[in-house]
Amino acid sequence: MNPTAIGADAWLDELERRRRLARRVVAEAGCDAGLVFGTDRRGQSFRYLTNFEPVLGDMWLLLDDDIRCFLAFEWQTIEAQRLSGISEWHAQFDPVPLVVEAVRESAARRVGVVGLERMPVPAYEALLRGVPGIELVDIAEPFSRLRRRKSPFEVELLREACRVTDAMLDAAREHTRVGATEHEIAAALAALPFAEGGECAFEPSVIAGIDDPVPIRRPTERALAAGDSVMVDVGATIQGYQGDATRTFVLGFPGRAQLDAWDVVRRAYEAALASIRPGVPCRDVHRAAAVIIENAGFQLGHRIGHGIGLATSYEWPSLDSEEAPLEPGVTICIEPGVYAPGIGNMKLEDDVVITDDGYELLTNSDRTLEVPL
Amino acid sequence: MNPTAIGADAWLDELERRRRLARRVVAEAGCDAGLVFGTDRRGQSFRYLTNFEPVLGDMWLLLDDDIRCFLAFEWQTIEAQRLSGISEWHAQFDPVPLVVEAVRESAARRVGVVGLERMPVPAYEALLRGVPGIELVDIAEPFSRLRRRKSPFEVELLREACRVTDAMLDAAREHTRVGATEHEIAAALAALPFAEGGECAFEPSVIAGIDDPVPIRRPTERALAAGDSVMVDVGATIQGYQGDATRTFVLGFPGRAQLDAWDVVRRAYEAALASIRPGVPCRDVHRAAAVIIENAGFQLGHRIGHGIGLATSYEWPSLDSEEAPLEPGVTICIEPGVYAPGIGNMKLEDDVVITDDGYELLTNSDRTLEVPL
Repeated sequence: MNPTAIGADAWLDELERRRRLARRVVAEAGCDAGLVFGTDRRGQSFRYLTNFEPVLGDMWLLLDDDIRCFLAFEWQTIEAQRLSGISEWHAQFDPVPLVVEAVRESAARRVGVVGLERMPVPAYEALLRGVPGIELVDIAEPFSRLRRRKSPFEVELLREACRVTDAMLDAAREHTRVGATEHEIAAALAALPFAEGGECAFEPSVIAGIDDPVPIRRPTERALAAGDSVMVDVGATIQGYQGDATRTFVLGFPGRAQLDAWDVVRRAYEAALASIRPGVPCRDVHRAAAVIIENAGFQLGHRIGHGIGLATSYEWPSLDSEEAPLEPGVTICIEPGVYAPGIGNMKLEDDVVITDDGYELLTNSDRTLEVPL
Repeated sequence: MNPTAIGADAWLDELERRRRLARRVVAEAGCDAGLVFGTDRRGQSFRYLTNFEPVLGDMWLLLDDDIRCFLAFEWQTIEAQRLSGISEWHAQFDPVPLVVEAVRESAARRVGVVGLERMPVPAYEALLRGVPGIELVDIAEPFSRLRRRKSPFEVELLREACRVTDAMLDAAREHTRVGATEHEIAAALAALPFAEGGECAFEPSVIAGIDDPVPIRRPTERALAAGDSVMVDVGATIQGYQGDATRTFVLGFPGRAQLDAWDVVRRAYEAALASIRPGVPCRDVHRAAAVIIENAGFQLGHRIGHGIGLATSYEWPSLDSEEAPLEPGVTICIEPGVYAPGIGNMKLEDDVVITDDGYELLTNSDRTLEVPL
C-alpha cells in the first residue's frame, strides 16, 4: 500500500464514523458537548477526530451538533480543513479565550472533557471562570476505549507505518560497518520516513558497544568496532500512525556472552508471541517473557511491550500492568531486552495485531544477529 | 566549532552559574524552594538548569540547597546524570507522587514554580492536596528573564546550531531540481542535524509551486517544475539550541510577479536588519518590515520574527507585540514573507545576535533566489 492510497473520501468516512462514536460517548456521560484538548506529542485524541495535528502548539475541539477547532497558529488552517473535512478552524497565539467563548456560545452546561489529565491549570481555570455554571466531566476513559481496538482502516495505516519502520531497520543493518558512527547511522534512518511523507515517531536510538548497558540513550559520535553489539530502536509515523521496532546486530563473530544473552532475548520474544491470542490478559504476555529474562539471571530493564497506534509508549495497553484481555484489533509491540556489561544492549522488538485466533506480525525486517565484517 | 568542543567541564560551570541565578530568583520571590515543570517540547526551563531533556514525558526539578529531578521513564537516567552533573534522578510512569513526596520532605512551604502555565490540572491538585499548607507562587516571569540575554557560551551553541541550519539550506539548494519531490528534499535535509549529533528543531517545511500560498504546511509528493517558487524553512538543534532559517528558490527564470514579490521580501528583510540595535523596541523591528510588505499591497501573513534559543516560535521576544528594547545578547530571527496566488511562497529568514552596536548574522547560507534549471 502506498501512503496516499487511502484517499480523502475514505478518510472522511472513517472520521464520520469516529465522530458518531465520540458523540455517543458524550451523550452517554450525560453531557451537552464534548471538549477535546491536545498539545505537542499528546494530540492523539484530537488527531483521532480530525486526521490532523499542528506542527506546534495546543489544539482544542468542541463537539456538539457542529465541530469547531482552535489552534495556537493560523499557519496550517488550510491543510487542517482539507484533512479533516471540518470548515471551522480558528487560531491565535493563546487560543484559550476563543475556546471559552465558543463553549459559552454553545450554551452547553455539562461538558465532557477529553485531555483533562494534560490540560494546563490556566486553561482549566479560564473555562470555569469564563462559563458560569459550567460542569467539566472527565470522559477520557470511555473515549480512550474507542481507540483500543483498531479498525481495519487503522490497521492498514499501521501496516504502512510498519513497512517504513522495516525499511529503517533494513537500512540500519546495511549501515552497520566498522567505523560508522552512531550519529551517521541515526541520520541515515531518520531520513527514510520523511521521504515517504511521514516522520520519525521518535528520535532513532542507535547504541553501540558492550560496555554501555542502557535501554535507551541519544546517539553519540562513537564509531562501531568489531565485536560491538549495536541496538537500533526506530519508528516511522505515517498519517499519524506509529510503528516501533528494534533490531540488534553484532558486528562480526558474536562472543559467547552475546550469544547467550541473545538466546535469552529470542526465547523471551518467542514466549511472548506464543502467548498472544484473544482472551489472554495483557499481563500474561508480559509475564511469559519476563520470567525467561529473570530466570536467566538478568534484571528486567523495562516492561515487555505496550500498545501502538497514534502513539507508542503512551498507547494502551501497558503490558506489565493491564489485566484486561487481548482482543482482535488490538495492536501492540513486543520488546524483550537484556542490558549488561560485557554484552551491551540486546533487544528484539516487533509490532503485532491481534487476530481472531492469534496474531499477525506487522514488522518483519531480518532478525539475524550477526552482520559480517 | 565542533558540537563536542564545549566539554563537560565548561557545561558544569555554566550550569552552576545558571543554578545560582535561579536560586536567587527563588529567594527574591520569598520562596523556600523552586519547582520546575516541563513536558514534551516545553522542557526549556528544565533544560536550562540541567542540559538535558528526556526523549519523552514530563520532567520535574526541585531546587533548594540540593537538586532532585524526576522523569516519567528511567531509560535515560545515566545520560541525564552525566550531562547535568546532578546525581539524584528518579523516574516512574507517573512521576507526580515522587514530586509531591520530595516537596513534602523538603519542608518548603512557599514554593516558586516555573512552568505553572503548562502544569496539568491533576499534578497541580496533587501538590495542593499532598503538601498541606503549601503555597505555589508563579515565578515564570523573573525566571524567564534569565533566558533573555544569551551568555557567550549560549551564543556559541546557537552559532553551531546555525552552522548546521546553513548546511540544511545549502543542501536544499542542491536538491532543488525539476522532478524532485517535496518529500525527498525534506528527507535529505532532515538527516543532516542527526549526522552532527543534533536533531531537527521542527519538521522541515518544503513548499513548491505558485498556486498554493501558505506560510507553512507539511511537505507533499508534489514534484518540482520549472518556474516553481520553492520555500524551505528549517532549523537544526544542537545541545538544545535551535536555529531557524528560510530560503526561497525559483527554479529557472523567475517571472515578473515572483521578482516583484522577492524585491518586497528583500526590502522588508533589509529594513528589519537596518533597525536592529540595542535600545530599539522589539516592535519597531516588526513595524520596519511590516509596512514595506503592506505598502506593496500584500497582506501580512505573520509576525516579522521572534526569539531563538532553547526554543524557536515560543522564545521571547515576539517582535510584533513586545515593547521592551533589544539588548546585547538577545537572539532573534527575522522572517518577512509574501504569500500570494501566482507567486507562491517567498520568505527570507535569518538568525541574528544583538551586539553592543548592532547585530551579527548567525545564518549565512546563499540567499540567491534563482536556481538554474
